[in-house]
Amino acid sequence: MKKEAFLIIDTSEENADLYYKTGFFVPDPVIYLEHNGEKILVLSDLEIDRGRKAATVDDVLSLSDFQRRLLAARKHPKLIGAAALLLRDRKIKKVTVPGRFGLKYADELRGEGFKVVPALTEPLFVERLRKTPEEVRFIKDALVKTAQAMDAAVKMIAASEVRKNRLYLGGKPLTSERVKGEINSFLSRAGFSAAHTIVACGIHSSMPHDSGRGQLFAGKPIVLDIFPRSQKTGYFGDMTRTVIKGGPSRELLDMYDTVLKGQKLAIDMIGPGVAVKDVHKAVVDYFDARGYKTGTVDGKTEGFIHSTGHGLGLEIHEPPRVGMGDEILEEGNVVTVEPGLYYARTGGIRIEDVVVVEKKGCRNLTRYPKKFRV
Amino acid sequence: MKKEAFLIIDTSEENADLYYKTGFFVPDPVIYLEHNGEKILVLSDLEIDRGRKAATVDDVLSLSDFQRRLLAARKHPKLIGAAALLLRDRKIKKVTVPGRFGLKYADELRGEGFKVVPALTEPLFVERLRKTPEEVRFIKDALVKTAQAMDAAVKMIAASEVRKNRLYLGGKPLTSERVKGEINSFLSRAGFSAAHTIVACGIHSSMPHDSGRGQLFAGKPIVLDIFPRSQKTGYFGDMTRTVIKGGPSRELLDMYDTVLKGQKLAIDMIGPGVAVKDVHKAVVDYFDARGYKTGTVDGKTEGFIHSTGHGLGLEIHEPPRVGMGDEILEEGNVVTVEPGLYYARTGGIRIEDVVVVEKKGCRNLTRYPKKFRV
Repeated sequence: MKKEAFLIIDTSEENADLYYKTGFFVPDPVIYLEHNGEKILVLSDLEIDRGRKAATVDDVLSLSDFQRRLLAARKHPKLIGAAALLLRDRKIKKVTVPGRFGLKYADELRGEGFKVVPALTEPLFVERLRKTPEEVRFIKDALVKTAQAMDAAVKMIAASEVRKNRLYLGGKPLTSERVKGEINSFLSRAGFSAAHTIVACGIHSSMPHDSGRGQLFAGKPIVLDIFPRSQKTGYFGDMTRTVIKGGPSRELLDMYDTVLKGQKLAIDMIGPGVAVKDVHKAVVDYFDARGYKTGTVDGKTEGFIHSTGHGLGLEIHEPPRVGMGDEILEEGNVVTVEPGLYYARTGGIRIEDVVVVEKKGCRNLTRYPKKFRV
Repeated sequence: MKKEAFLIIDTSEENADLYYKTGFFVPDPVIYLEHNGEKILVLSDLEIDRGRKAATVDDVLSLSDFQRRLLAARKHPKLIGAAALLLRDRKIKKVTVPGRFGLKYADELRGEGFKVVPALTEPLFVERLRKTPEEVRFIKDALVKTAQAMDAAVKMIAASEVRKNRLYLGGKPLTSERVKGEINSFLSRAGFSAAHTIVACGIHSSMPHDSGRGQLFAGKPIVLDIFPRSQKTGYFGDMTRTVIKGGPSRELLDMYDTVLKGQKLAIDMIGPGVAVKDVHKAVVDYFDARGYKTGTVDGKTEGFIHSTGHGLGLEIHEPPRVGMGDEILEEGNVVTVEPGLYYARTGGIRIEDVVVVEKKGCRNLTRYPKKFRV
């Protein structure tokens, strides 16, 4: 029990700390107060019955009650006014808030004499970064569905025919949009939301977050990156594979082999007490040694242009980042391991698994083959 | 051209102002500065090529360049440090930021002597609330797909068989999950993301945001609320219908008729210069006159427990809210009109269309029948 008051005013769709503590999805901002270990949620009439049933908190208070008090005092019945009343009721003068706490809310509370301090940690509740066995299971469940969606997509590409260097399936052009439609509709039906799924071929694959468009080509890498969120548990899966239909050139084969071995090297290093920086540097150095430089060519930065991985949980990108930061890995951390190489001329290759840091080393939670040629 | 500096540090997935100005989806926080009408985006190596191609801004700057300068000055190469450098480069001392601007960023900038002022308006760029013909078309496109998804769902319910007061389709129980799976997979395939779709029957329908679960019942209202976002344009559709299979009781028929007429009354009132409060009050009064009171029964608030509607665009809920606030409707506003009645004993009924405020009155953008019995 922390002798402190934590205040969040946000939607739990966007604020993972809030969802973590309440287990309650809500699309509009609500007030959450954690005071000496007691968890309180303030909800509008629209949400209050649902919240009383579903939210994992100690008390659900009615926003309407606070609004009536504000109106009686001839004040505007706004959310931040209700938060101020709640703090006064409990004689709280200082609150710790997440770094992303809205400035407008903070300035209004400060204007009323409260001390509002952004948390030194990110996220607000750092215990979120050491996953419990249940959380690991939720992430694994998401990865199982992700693998099934990946398989459906890879099979479409594998089953396609090549005509004049372009892919066709069932007599019709096989496009990025078609493959994404298949992936996303499969995941939606399974109770996941999947936005911005990547199926990027050729030049698009050389930009890591380009989601791809148009007909797919033979002999060019196709990056598939799928990261659905369970609408039931809130946890994400995240997986990337790169495949090619036709070819590949020796140059691409070597590049694929380099990324694959770079990933293995990183996974082999990951464990408790390991500095993320050392993992990332090892991959950069390995790529460098194999002749894959990172740098600026004609004003474009090419090579290994992102970090090796990121934390995964209720957020798609959360700490720890496996990059050049100062973080040390801990047991229970769940991180992606996704080195990649990107060159405008040849395209991009990325391979991504998710691992959980264990007492010794780490365990790979992703089960899906890594096969370039399909 | 505004003689002012606007600063946003956020993701465009979550910050509609940022997406509005850049047309660029990015999952991690980026720096956006609008200075005397010039639009500048600062992107990491991971995003910069994609941003230079796709973002509708005047200049895309490299985050790496700022980070190198910070490191050379022995400072931490963090995002907010880069933002401070950018402001100094342009001799900007005061920035206007959105109300949701992160407190941690704000405190750091203030600590370095900048004046950081949350905007008086919400959203930051109020022009967002007066939709252009193109934006109205994007919303209409989303509503067309929403109607197709609704139709698929309604047809499942209509085609179901009733056994012992429960619905079956194709010999298997027809559940909320099955109908939602159909809706969401249809929308995903069409390039939309749809999360938290509502298919709520019986007691679940009496809680407006309960997404529903389990087998559907005969003789009880089924609320279907579908609000997909186009992954291409970023705009939302939003539609609710309530249907019933078997029955309905005279009580439910009267309640449906009341909600339907309340909606018509609201739509007939909406136009430029109209106070949202007057529209909302008219619906409340009409419900009241027909005997549908809003109040607390056994500690639960029942009746018409939300506002009549909300603005719709790049956010699912944006101003103007058609509720008890002081807003006045303007030409170009796009709002939902969705009165509802909710009673734990009988269930909930809600009907929702989307209208655009025109020179005179408003135009209904939703095309889908309102039929209770299916």
